Amino acid sequence: MRRTSALILIGNEILSGRTRDENIQFLAKNLGELGIPLREVRVIPDVRETIIKTVTEIRAAYDEVFTTGGIGPTHDDITAPCVAEAFGVPWEIHPPTFALLEDYFRKTEFNAARQRMAKLPRGATPIRNPVSLAPGFTIGNVHVLAGVPRIMRAMFEELAPTLRPGEPVFSLTWHVTSLYEGALAEGLEAIQAQYPDLDIGSYPFHRGDGRYGVALVAKGQDRDAVTQAAAHIHDLIEKKGGTPQQGEPPP
Amino acid sequence: MRRTSALILIGNEILSGRTRDENIQFLAKNLGELGIPLREVRVIPDVRETIIKTVTEIRAAYDEVFTTGGIGPTHDDITAPCVAEAFGVPWEIHPPTFALLEDYFRKTEFNAARQRMAKLPRGATPIRNPVSLAPGFTIGNVHVLAGVPRIMRAMFEELAPTLRPGEPVFSLTWHVTSLYEGALAEGLEAIQAQYPDLDIGSYPFHRGDGRYGVALVAKGQDRDAVTQAAAHIHDLIEKKGGTPQQGEPPP
Repeated sequence: MRRTSALILIGNEILSGRTRDENIQFLAKNLGELGIPLREVRVIPDVRETIIKTVTEIRAAYDEVFTTGGIGPTHDDITAPCVAEAFGVPWEIHPPTFALLEDYFRKTEFNAARQRMAKLPRGATPIRNPVSLAPGFTIGNVHVLAGVPRIMRAMFEELAPTLRPGEPVFSLTWHVTSLYEGALAEGLEAIQAQYPDLDIGSYPFHRGDGRYGVALVAKGQDRDAVTQAAAHIHDLIEKKGGTPQQGEPPP
Repeated sequence: MRRTSALILIGNEILSGRTRDENIQFLAKNLGELGIPLREVRVIPDVRETIIKTVTEIRAAYDEVFTTGGIGPTHDDITAPCVAEAFGVPWEIHPPTFALLEDYFRKTEFNAARQRMAKLPRGATPIRNPVSLAPGFTIGNVHVLAGVPRIMRAMFEELAPTLRPGEPVFSLTWHVTSLYEGALAEGLEAIQAQYPDLDIGSYPFHRGDGRYGVALVAKGQDRDAVTQAAAHIHDLIEKKGGTPQQGEPPP
């Protein structure tokens, strides 16, 4: 059975260009490997109505939904109360998390802002944060992760074993330098037509040093079909005068 | 007057994790500087119905809409016909672009796949591509750019002077090391309450080498208010025992 996922990045800092996203690719690769491929990503601002509306819409459309960002102690960290509202449940102190943070912040100050991080939507399961302690959480099919990449990745490692995997996706890539997509397009379309259940992708590259070429990818759940389509791609490149090279082009 | 923009990244390669996005941050920064801040980003697959639905929805919600990806010569490059369909116009040969490409590909082969790149939605204005010739285009408030970062940036430079700028946004940043957000949160909320028209943002960082801290950003269209709020941020950091440092933290 085909399982799908979507990702919501919550944060003005991505939309302003202040921060370059480092989370999409990590989650895309890992979810692909789990057989729960990412089908959509949205980047939205720290605006209450927008978060609630987006979570409500996206969680109805995909099997698993991940959010990153907006779960810290400051006034602009509003993801958790918004997710609670999207699920129609209260956002309240989660006693085991409160005890954990109270103990941790004993040395400094367990103030009101930090106590906020001990609040979860009612019914949510915390996701352990081995880096900075304040947890993410899962409620229904929505998994709420930190925005800081190191913390996000650590939370995802905690979460991954609890996710139900889907069927794995196989992929084979050939690339060729000094040949343009336009020379390969017709042959590639024929291969796509022969294997309608696969995704046959064509990705041109142009390097700063003048190198150019195309990477051609065959991808799908039928391993034999992927192998056969990749062999056709290899032959197509040779027929057009190129030298097929396995895998992705060097950076 | 406040102007807004949105970005649609069209491409399976971002959703599969094959390619790390390099376009969001460039467009976010440049659109911010033009006073047309990015309010939403969507990453969607090369699926006809999804592209048409997303373009239709997003172009009604924002002043300017940018798309990247899916305008090459191969079967998976379906952005242009989908945008034509979203606007209810035919996708047809654009004679000046056809002449340009015919001349250019005379040396190799101006085949059917390459002729596809000479087709635009009726009424669209081409956006010059100084890198690999095949143009992007503007139709209504939708600007269709290449996905390859070098080509996208070159097209954007061509396009930028034609965009109507909005009011500029000013921003000042202080950062502090060895202090957590939780210590600053309450004071920061008070500053946000004092300047409700500004965006006061708090962005923790955790480096691999153990350095940690917070960057605090004041942003808005009223330059005096931004300056005053930044001064309060400076004083708050000192009051909490930190040493305020101007600008973003080093990587």
